[in-house]
Amino acid sequence: MNPLAIPEIVIRRLPLYLRVLNRLADDGRTLTSSQELGDTLGISSTQIRKDLSYFGEFGKQGTGYGVRYLRDQLRQILQVDRRWNLVLIGAGDLGRAILRYNGFQEGGFSIVAVLDNDQEKIGRQIGKLKVQDVAKLPEVIAEHGVQIAVIAVPASEAQEVAEALVNAGVNAILTYAPITLSLPDHIRVEYIDPLIGLQTMAYYLSPGHL
Amino acid sequence: MNPLAIPEIVIRRLPLYLRVLNRLADDGRTLTSSQELGDTLGISSTQIRKDLSYFGEFGKQGTGYGVRYLRDQLRQILQVDRRWNLVLIGAGDLGRAILRYNGFQEGGFSIVAVLDNDQEKIGRQIGKLKVQDVAKLPEVIAEHGVQIAVIAVPASEAQEVAEALVNAGVNAILTYAPITLSLPDHIRVEYIDPLIGLQTMAYYLSPGHL
Repeated sequence: MNPLAIPEIVIRRLPLYLRVLNRLADDGRTLTSSQELGDTLGISSTQIRKDLSYFGEFGKQGTGYGVRYLRDQLRQILQVDRRWNLVLIGAGDLGRAILRYNGFQEGGFSIVAVLDNDQEKIGRQIGKLKVQDVAKLPEVIAEHGVQIAVIAVPASEAQEVAEALVNAGVNAILTYAPITLSLPDHIRVEYIDPLIGLQTMAYYLSPGHL
Repeated sequence: MNPLAIPEIVIRRLPLYLRVLNRLADDGRTLTSSQELGDTLGISSTQIRKDLSYFGEFGKQGTGYGVRYLRDQLRQILQVDRRWNLVLIGAGDLGRAILRYNGFQEGGFSIVAVLDNDQEKIGRQIGKLKVQDVAKLPEVIAEHGVQIAVIAVPASEAQEVAEALVNAGVNAILTYAPITLSLPDHIRVEYIDPLIGLQTMAYYLSPGHL
């Protein structure tokens, strides 16, 4: 099947399935079902079977899915059976929280460098990494073959940082800064913006919706 | 129009429109258009006009939208023209980053208390707030009329914290912990999980997609 024909909303659910499968595997479970995955995630079992059918046949009618098999297949589909080197820009509270979060590592991503423009922060040790001068960005990216970057700088600096990343060869950016980045079309950007979730919930907390 | 008939995907885009309108207003702009909003966000102008039409007529053919007017209307629709009191559970690096982020305040949300179960952290001052013992959760929630909570604790503690929040009367939870919470159906939960974005981008960085 032409991968371009698979809706992005389907791709975006695969990491959720993978998260549940990882936990089931950690718990020593060998078999699961679209029903169990769906109940855990609040998604219908029909939707899950339809999503997976874009990529092949992963289970048998009546016996369900092998947990490790489906997990490994999803890792392969998402290309996280390899390891991606990330750079992190921003060594403030948020940057430190990101560095200390194990989930990146477990999900297929290694933060190989953290950079900042603050002379107070440059040279400091955070976990295994020493904060580097953001001026070294092009060298760091070339040295580690980095394609994906994480931005954890204030909104006022995010556009400039993003442009420097793109100029240095990065193709994909995960940004925590609450501004919409203006970048060439071929650059993929994912936003982490807690206000989207909070304001959506506020809407549904209105008297007419409770 | 019956608010239940408006698709959630539409509601979820309103905060994005609001974000752009806030910036335009800060820049002193008085008029905008669905075209400009769309170009900034990478959404078609047709989609934006269709989304807004669920809620009324906000612009005039040929003159566009009044920036402040549309901003105020969206704030009202999303119920963020009032202020929501939030509690934050977890005073680690992530909790501190959340406390120092101005965006919550600007978006209609005030963090009125931060709580933790770590005796080392309880009593410490972070900005204007002193970290309180999580055992005081019910009193804090009742005192401030809190309906929304933010969870910034490790995955292993998130389910227990979420249940305590629900028992104390919280109706909506924004969680940064990378596990799917199991809660009563009427509780709204929004997840902040950077792996979803990273793994989605990894998929699209495969050779067939570049």
